[in-house]
Amino acid sequence: MSEAMEVGYDVPALPDMTEAEVQTPCLAIDLEPFERNVSRMREICEGLGVRHRAHGKMHRSADIARYQIEAGGACGICCQKVSEAEAFQRAGLADILITNQVTEPAKIDRLARLAGRGRIIVCADDPANVAAISEAAQRRGTQIEVLVEIECGAGRCGIAPGAPAVTLAKAIDAAPGLRFSGLQAYQGGAQHKRPFSERQALVEAAIADVRTTVDLLSAAGLACDIIGGAGTGTYNLEGASGLYNELQCGSYAFMDADYAKVLDQAGQPISEFEHALFVLTSVMSTAVPGQAVCDAGLKAHSIDSGPPVVFGRPGLGIGKFSDEHGVIADPENTLKLNDRLRLVPGHCDPTCNLHDWYVGIRNGVVETLWPVTARGKGY
Amino acid sequence: MSEAMEVGYDVPALPDMTEAEVQTPCLAIDLEPFERNVSRMREICEGLGVRHRAHGKMHRSADIARYQIEAGGACGICCQKVSEAEAFQRAGLADILITNQVTEPAKIDRLARLAGRGRIIVCADDPANVAAISEAAQRRGTQIEVLVEIECGAGRCGIAPGAPAVTLAKAIDAAPGLRFSGLQAYQGGAQHKRPFSERQALVEAAIADVRTTVDLLSAAGLACDIIGGAGTGTYNLEGASGLYNELQCGSYAFMDADYAKVLDQAGQPISEFEHALFVLTSVMSTAVPGQAVCDAGLKAHSIDSGPPVVFGRPGLGIGKFSDEHGVIADPENTLKLNDRLRLVPGHCDPTCNLHDWYVGIRNGVVETLWPVTARGKGY
Repeated sequence: MSEAMEVGYDVPALPDMTEAEVQTPCLAIDLEPFERNVSRMREICEGLGVRHRAHGKMHRSADIARYQIEAGGACGICCQKVSEAEAFQRAGLADILITNQVTEPAKIDRLARLAGRGRIIVCADDPANVAAISEAAQRRGTQIEVLVEIECGAGRCGIAPGAPAVTLAKAIDAAPGLRFSGLQAYQGGAQHKRPFSERQALVEAAIADVRTTVDLLSAAGLACDIIGGAGTGTYNLEGASGLYNELQCGSYAFMDADYAKVLDQAGQPISEFEHALFVLTSVMSTAVPGQAVCDAGLKAHSIDSGPPVVFGRPGLGIGKFSDEHGVIADPENTLKLNDRLRLVPGHCDPTCNLHDWYVGIRNGVVETLWPVTARGKGY
Repeated sequence: MSEAMEVGYDVPALPDMTEAEVQTPCLAIDLEPFERNVSRMREICEGLGVRHRAHGKMHRSADIARYQIEAGGACGICCQKVSEAEAFQRAGLADILITNQVTEPAKIDRLARLAGRGRIIVCADDPANVAAISEAAQRRGTQIEVLVEIECGAGRCGIAPGAPAVTLAKAIDAAPGLRFSGLQAYQGGAQHKRPFSERQALVEAAIADVRTTVDLLSAAGLACDIIGGAGTGTYNLEGASGLYNELQCGSYAFMDADYAKVLDQAGQPISEFEHALFVLTSVMSTAVPGQAVCDAGLKAHSIDSGPPVVFGRPGLGIGKFSDEHGVIADPENTLKLNDRLRLVPGHCDPTCNLHDWYVGIRNGVVETLWPVTARGKGY
């Protein structure tokens, strides 16, 4: 980041500002809990004896990805889009898994070019798509690693486990320019289920699908370098399966309000990770009695998984949003004009994608600014 | 836009591409209905004898704002944030109303600087805020125009109409560096009500509040150059009031799926404006029977006002989203890999803010790319 950038027009803050001087609304990372979250995930994966491939779709930041690799021991990163992979690779990241299908001809060509500059792994669930990726790899003279994505309960993408998956794996193995590298088995539908027992039942079914498929692949002489999946809600289940060897957690680094509602085996909120990401907001109108209006609306946080939570102020509820405003019920009129609040986003991934910058704060002082490197990179 | 930009990494398309070659997901403007919408609003405002100050918060694009002024006869633009005003002013727009409070000290200073480079109008609902804006204007040697925002039913910002508003107007009128320019009276809660009668009742109440306030102001010797408000759902009501003289419509230019549900006096969907904005998407997985997965999820459209609608394909419903995926129920499996669809966003304002570019298409061919100039400009 250039120090010549103008606060307001270009960036919401500069290093050495206090948190109270930061221009709102913006994303702030409290660096100490963030660093503890990353360390904790490293310890967890080392304890489980599995690799962690941190999911960059959550933060879309090359700086955070690099920290997850260097300090957090991650083996590489995941993302969801070719354009994200382009942005991460240009920022120096060398080992990238796109946990998604890439099917459009021009995108496949872009994928094949990326594979000439670093390790690129992609998922497939369709034989015609495998043929198209092979053709592009040959044309570009590169090798693309491919995982077979199996549908293991989330009902989104993925070929059926068992024999159909093995047929597709054989096609990848036989295709010039491609390397069969294993399975993608992400049970996205399990991550946010509140009771532990529901997550456990869904992930056990997914593990059974993986086991069936791996056994058939093995009988066909095909080994899986990567058996990938899991997220912040279920990593301990896949991690202890003896099958999955790469976990793909993302939200653990920031912990949003929705993940804070997920319960552990004892029925308590999961406590391994702390809230480290906030939308900073300021009160900008108190003219209507009984409420305060803050400057963070639908363009500052995504409410698809529920509203944000006012951090450290349990008496204040924020629940009514317009594009640029959030209305905080404040029956006692405790909030004053320009009061600052930290909001814990309801859902971190689409909230991070709204902003251009993370303001990294330590002990109330801005330490660094990190761009949201792949913000808006969907195409 | 530089032609040297790389498709995919930098931009979703280049001029002369066909719509089928555009990289998805991205925003596309169908230029012919867009131009018809802008012309229609010009005719409407000319017929009503009122000015139109187009709301730039909807599109955040300097190119579109310029078109609304040059072809659409708009007298200037509105926006909601100092950072939007900075971006629009740097892009050459000279007459900008911030239809919102600006209360934070550094933001007020930025506002005062902007007023040295073009016409800047801002809203206020608090006497201490008026004093702070006056102080900044004096320090910067500029003049800032100020509207008193009255709370006329939406329950968000705004001082009470009548005597409290007049007291605030007098304070503005007396404050060095400020000019009292009128009233902001936006009934945001009325815009999306489905039956015409509900919108009418809410706006009639707002008009009564405006009338009371204007009469008291007049008795105090204070004239209103601007009486502003209204939106795409109610412009005909405020426009015919004989009081409002500047309408602030935004969504009319694009028409999202939610506004298409607003009914006219005959109980029919309002028909003045056509859908002109789309999220282009491609099918990227058909592996699970009975559904197709497209590449536009929560990072491509905001679902706060409901899901997008598949344009021109009434049999297809899209209703399940994750960050990068949309699941389309397709019981007959009519969709194939890489099929293209146009989605009408549920809510255009926060959807536009997710993207960096508008791809302008005429008769199926890309004619232009317009940056989302003030994207992410919230702080």
